[in-house]
Amino acid sequence: MKSILDYETVALIDEDDALEIIDQTQLPGRTEIIRLHTGKEIWDAIYLLQVRGAPAIGVSAGMGLYLLMKHSNAGSYEEFMCELQEKSDYLNSSRPTAVNLSWALKRMKAHVEDTYIKLAAQKAPSESGDAPGKDASASLPETAPGKDTSSSPSWTETRSALIKEMHDECERIKQEDIDVCRRIGEYGLTLIEDGYGLLTHCNAGQLCACKYGTATAPMYLAHEKGYKIKVYCDETRPLLQGARLTAYELHSAGIDTTLLCDNMSASLMKSGAINAIFTGCDRVAANGDAANKIGTSMVALAAKRYGIPFYICAPTSTIDLNTPTGDDIKIEQRKPEEVTEMWYKERMAPEGINVYNPAFDVTDNELIAGIVTEYGVLKAPYDEAIRRVFVEKEAER
Amino acid sequence: MKSILDYETVALIDEDDALEIIDQTQLPGRTEIIRLHTGKEIWDAIYLLQVRGAPAIGVSAGMGLYLLMKHSNAGSYEEFMCELQEKSDYLNSSRPTAVNLSWALKRMKAHVEDTYIKLAAQKAPSESGDAPGKDASASLPETAPGKDTSSSPSWTETRSALIKEMHDECERIKQEDIDVCRRIGEYGLTLIEDGYGLLTHCNAGQLCACKYGTATAPMYLAHEKGYKIKVYCDETRPLLQGARLTAYELHSAGIDTTLLCDNMSASLMKSGAINAIFTGCDRVAANGDAANKIGTSMVALAAKRYGIPFYICAPTSTIDLNTPTGDDIKIEQRKPEEVTEMWYKERMAPEGINVYNPAFDVTDNELIAGIVTEYGVLKAPYDEAIRRVFVEKEAER
Repeated sequence: MKSILDYETVALIDEDDALEIIDQTQLPGRTEIIRLHTGKEIWDAIYLLQVRGAPAIGVSAGMGLYLLMKHSNAGSYEEFMCELQEKSDYLNSSRPTAVNLSWALKRMKAHVEDTYIKLAAQKAPSESGDAPGKDASASLPETAPGKDTSSSPSWTETRSALIKEMHDECERIKQEDIDVCRRIGEYGLTLIEDGYGLLTHCNAGQLCACKYGTATAPMYLAHEKGYKIKVYCDETRPLLQGARLTAYELHSAGIDTTLLCDNMSASLMKSGAINAIFTGCDRVAANGDAANKIGTSMVALAAKRYGIPFYICAPTSTIDLNTPTGDDIKIEQRKPEEVTEMWYKERMAPEGINVYNPAFDVTDNELIAGIVTEYGVLKAPYDEAIRRVFVEKEAER
Repeated sequence: MKSILDYETVALIDEDDALEIIDQTQLPGRTEIIRLHTGKEIWDAIYLLQVRGAPAIGVSAGMGLYLLMKHSNAGSYEEFMCELQEKSDYLNSSRPTAVNLSWALKRMKAHVEDTYIKLAAQKAPSESGDAPGKDASASLPETAPGKDTSSSPSWTETRSALIKEMHDECERIKQEDIDVCRRIGEYGLTLIEDGYGLLTHCNAGQLCACKYGTATAPMYLAHEKGYKIKVYCDETRPLLQGARLTAYELHSAGIDTTLLCDNMSASLMKSGAINAIFTGCDRVAANGDAANKIGTSMVALAAKRYGIPFYICAPTSTIDLNTPTGDDIKIEQRKPEEVTEMWYKERMAPEGINVYNPAFDVTDNELIAGIVTEYGVLKAPYDEAIRRVFVEKEAER
């Protein structure tokens, strides 16, 4: 088995006009690297969860949009943007609730618009003396609708420049994700010692990002450094991301990995096997309450009981200042079949039974020993620590 | 679907020389009532978990032993006991670690021995004037080995009496179990109010006993009384007894039943849906620490957090005065395949992964709001309460 670290979860293969991904629906049984060429293939890959995890979906969408526009013959800027919007809407429809999907698509579009304005501004001063700005676009080559502009050297140059910028922007989205994960890994590493037993829940691993993952980043870096760590993965019912994905990726990387059912982690902590816990998170409220995969709060409760530090790994992009506390986070209820029959040889519960199946739960901030971000490890009181990190982040821009 | 309460988990059908059980390997998909006639069929049913749960196994073994001896042609008491021991060893080999199995078989044998001594004592005074006792057996009809005694009216009468007593004793084992469960149910009912939401973990239901079960007994009685209760069942990985058995039996009885994954109970408690929690237990230590199905302690931790009373339902037969605390309870580690592939369409974890799979965990006594026994609800300090209940139990004999 090759190590997960020898692959990238999502990669642009520009010379083949393709997006290359690990087909996650085949894991853990088969490691299949597939190339997606058409819009339909990319749409299907996101819809069918062949690629999943907020950052990985965002990068896939950005790269997908670039590939779909790469050979555009749009005769004008308006036509180009119209085509871009159409492709963007199409990709966005593959998983309408995935925030990173629409975020990445909007960022790609905004970058094209900004680029167009800058290009106009570069030309504008010599042509009209106007200050650069939105109006500057008016001074770019005229491309009236319906007019054959294929021979307009100015627009085709602009179009090439826009496409080139789309390429660079989607690669930047990916590189930023890798950098954030790497920095989370480095800060997380300061919380680990050689010989530690670590526990994680769900998959906040490389498979949901591009490299390192979030909760797994400190583990990969500890392993790289030669630390002998043991990582325990909750299987994470009902979708079994821990068993299928986290156990797979850590094991493939040569880390000593042990799988357990979600209800076994307290027993494991009591046995003394666990020194620290790292999980990812879906959203952090302004007071540090953290929503993550269902079951995370039970891990945190047991950790508190047995005096084990419980850390949340959170890129600052997941911290939402507009959500005052965990109580303000709306939790999605998912379909019963995930619990009663999915994965199984036959249905495992009586017909007609009610099912409680929330996707996430909220871990109270007082159960969290630290929030590991790309700007460092935040400590309680979290409201202050979070405000400080946002000031720092703003100042960096 | 017929209600579970319309069946008995185990029943002796004397006129058909049969043991009747619900084939639990077919649940929750099919309710199949099967009759077992031969020793092999009874052995298989226990081995294959068609009948399971400590009390139900004990009753099955007792009734099985009676059926296997019912038509005995043993020519003497020694021959009869030799045959009984052989059948007993055979049944006991079906699940050697099941304590109730060997307990019931030993009780059946001891009762036959006691009966034989009593019968001898009844005859002895008129024949020899000796005081009743072990030696009295010497005054029963001589039945030298190899001697044809089929014509001895005295031994055939004795043999019939022993067989009759075996019948009565196995029915008594069953009735005692039903009485204990009923009393636990009545004491548990005092802890429930109309409209309560209740949570349970694993199956301490009628399906593991003969009637009512332990943790489910208060629920069935509340339902009988017309209380509108809602019961939530943890699915209980890895063997899914909650999904397959508890959800099935409560739902069949017309109780409003909801299934959840084990990692969802804290979220449910936080939501306010749960007013009290009842679980069974495998062993209670002298200080009240309770070993039960893996995951129970995580339920108790969440209950403590959200101020919900967590009750253990425990026949006093599961309280072990020779086990000082929970730390003295050895926990069985089970095979990895239960976690990685059993039930599944395909293996759900990478090949070669380590697995942590303990069968039970221990809930610290301070997390337990009460231990519901057939003698009442024990409250902390548990060491004293447990000593008192054993004094009462002893006095009752």
